Amino acid sequence: MYPPAIQKLIAQFAIFPTIGPRTAARFVFYLLKASDEETKNLAESLLQMKERVKLCSFCFNPFEPIDTAQGKPSWLCEICRDPGREKTAICVIEKESDLAALETIKQYRGRYFILGGTVHKLKQEDLEILRTKELIERVKTPEITEIILATNSTPEGENTALYLERKLANFNKKITRLGRGLPLGGELEYADPETLKSALENRK
Amino acid sequence: MYPPAIQKLIAQFAIFPTIGPRTAARFVFYLLKASDEETKNLAESLLQMKERVKLCSFCFNPFEPIDTAQGKPSWLCEICRDPGREKTAICVIEKESDLAALETIKQYRGRYFILGGTVHKLKQEDLEILRTKELIERVKTPEITEIILATNSTPEGENTALYLERKLANFNKKITRLGRGLPLGGELEYADPETLKSALENRK
Amino acid sequence: MYPPAIQKLIAQFAIFPTIGPRTAARFVFYLLKASDEETKNLAESLLQMKERVKLCSFCFNPFEPIDTAQGKPSWLCEICRDPGREKTAICVIEKESDLAALETIKQYRGRYFILGGTVHKLKQEDLEILRTKELIERVKTPEITEIILATNSTPEGENTALYLERKLANFNKKITRLGRGLPLGGELEYADPETLKSALENRK
Amino acid sequence: MYPPAIQKLIAQFAIFPTIGPRTAARFVFYLLKASDEETKNLAESLLQMKERVKLCSFCFNPFEPIDTAQGKPSWLCEICRDPGREKTAICVIEKESDLAALETIKQYRGRYFILGGTVHKLKQEDLEILRTKELIERVKTPEITEIILATNSTPEGENTALYLERKLANFNKKITRLGRGLPLGGELEYADPETLKSALENRK
Repeated sequence: MYPPAIQKLIAQFAIFPTIGPRTAARFVFYLLKASDEETKNLAESLLQMKERVKLCSFCFNPFEPIDTAQGKPSWLCEICRDPGREKTAICVIEKESDLAALETIKQYRGRYFILGGTVHKLKQEDLEILRTKELIERVKTPEITEIILATNSTPEGENTALYLERKLANFNKKITRLGRGLPLGGELEYADPETLKSALENRK
Repeated sequence: MYPPAIQKLIAQFAIFPTIGPRTAARFVFYLLKASDEETKNLAESLLQMKERVKLCSFCFNPFEPIDTAQGKPSWLCEICRDPGREKTAICVIEKESDLAALETIKQYRGRYFILGGTVHKLKQEDLEILRTKELIERVKTPEITEIILATNSTPEGENTALYLERKLANFNKKITRLGRGLPLGGELEYADPETLKSALENRK
Repeated sequence: MYPPAIQKLIAQFAIFPTIGPRTAARFVFYLLKASDEETKNLAESLLQMKERVKLCSFCFNPFEPIDTAQGKPSWLCEICRDPGREKTAICVIEKESDLAALETIKQYRGRYFILGGTVHKLKQEDLEILRTKELIERVKTPEITEIILATNSTPEGENTALYLERKLANFNKKITRLGRGLPLGGELEYADPETLKSALENRK
Repeated sequence: MYPPAIQKLIAQFAIFPTIGPRTAARFVFYLLKASDEETKNLAESLLQMKERVKLCSFCFNPFEPIDTAQGKPSWLCEICRDPGREKTAICVIEKESDLAALETIKQYRGRYFILGGTVHKLKQEDLEILRTKELIERVKTPEITEIILATNSTPEGENTALYLERKLANFNKKITRLGRGLPLGGELEYADPETLKSALENRK
């Protein structure tokens, strides 16, 4: 229906998360109206991002290694190389945006570890998306005393946390989970029994 | 449009909570098709409910006073007259369905107090819907040592809890609130900062 | 959980269309707070509605037969006994609220026929909810020249219209369906092909 | 929060239609995980699309001019240069995806004209987004006998059609609008009065 160059671009946008062919088409028509400059900038930003952004060798947080003009390039992200961050706690999260959410509250002062996903079932092939081996390596170091398993409270997040708890049980570290309770805006009537139990237990 | 007897009934259903005229009309057409028996039963149930159900003289929970055949009628609901319930704690909730939600989890063993609502602003006329005076009377008794302000985590619930905290401050009782945290199914990325802070603080 | 008289009423409201147990409970707590007067009025309205409202012997529209003080009771609803309405057209609709919707636009001047439902499949037991026999009787009279099959444009409505078209084919009457097209507020991009075809065909 | 190269790309995606910063971030993290190849392909497709796709000089439909190897490049899109399409009708639509929707039904055999938008108010600055001047030029030619104003049935679409009707009134052409009626799946009870009126009028 649409010319090939448009169809190709629609197909490429349509595999973006949450995007279907109709929204992908809207993206393309938006770009068709945008200036050549704007489209060129977008293409450049895409390439630049892939070129410049690396994953932190400790926590897998994406970051831009320091410009060599400023000295040696770093293999650690800003958080991991910050001397002000405590080295005793490691907070295991599923993905980049969870790290961003936790940083926003400016409360946690330790380091993170991006797990790379969560799993629904404990099938070997599914488990491979998790950076379990790397996590175990980080956790082994004596400086780490607490592992916070901050996966989501979804079935996948819970499953993954249980799996990691088992895997990390032998390292003699304190393992914690995020506290459960009534969220801001939550109503007793619509809360599930588990949440309500925790909210009652954790009252203060 | 509709005959008067139908219009009148639509108007009466349309003031039910969450119901508008269109759903009210569907109720009436449903009843029109229902048997005379069914409608008669509904009318009787309405009258019976108003006649039989009373509010507990301690917690304002609706209950049916014991049949006099079984002895003296009671002015206390089943929970309040249960000798197995602890008398030391009183859990203040907004409404009947909140009490039902908390009873479902079979964890709380104290008594309740139905506040009758929550307020958005601390205007005198709004505050009158709250059973504050009655709550203070209950709380004064020495047997009560903990007051759980289990209002919803909505702005109204928070406002009301703050207001009650001030009103109850002089009675030297432990005042607690439900614990805040990530609810079951909650995701870090979509949690508000307050909830995330509490979830991190209450980790265990 | 709730006292028997409340539980019974919740169960009765919970079978109302679109209502589940939680909303039914809200209805009962609403009534618990309402005055005795209000509840008594509701119970009376229920009984009155069942007693006074009858179905029109021509179109099955619910109506209140004229008070005998004003003369003989009628077996025809206001529309059917209105001498100003044309007797040549009969508009077949699924249910009472469809009749109300069509009357609102004050455009149709013929009579109606409430079919009593629509069917998904042409199974004998399903077809029994339709007043097909009564419709055929009405349609047979020579004064009727047009039958408007104004069922919804849903699969059930379409099925039912097709079924009736076949049943009514031998009576040599003009059979029409509501015009299809873009509804007010409709957008070409989101319209289904059938709707778009009709909109293009019916352009004017 | 995120590294500059990520933040820049998030900002560029966040101005795409229907996309906010959160979804834009999901796009970037998706690309971060995608292969370099995939990202490079996307960047190339963007540039290619802008380079290859031109707007048809008659109808403003985006198209790829014929490869010069196949003869002279064309300034007309596939539809406009198709000798099988009737030259008598011109169908005015708001945007590219409306043209695609109408082509899907394979019923219309004339040409199109992409207006470039619709306006809410008839303010001069708003009206400038419409290709009114170009439309008038196309319409002037004697071969065109019918102008179909196929704008959406939204307030903006209706306003724009009324505006164009006035502008085109002096050219002695038949001006039509898409037929209004009950859409596929539509229900009488929820249809607005205008739609119901048209559905009744256009019955057949």
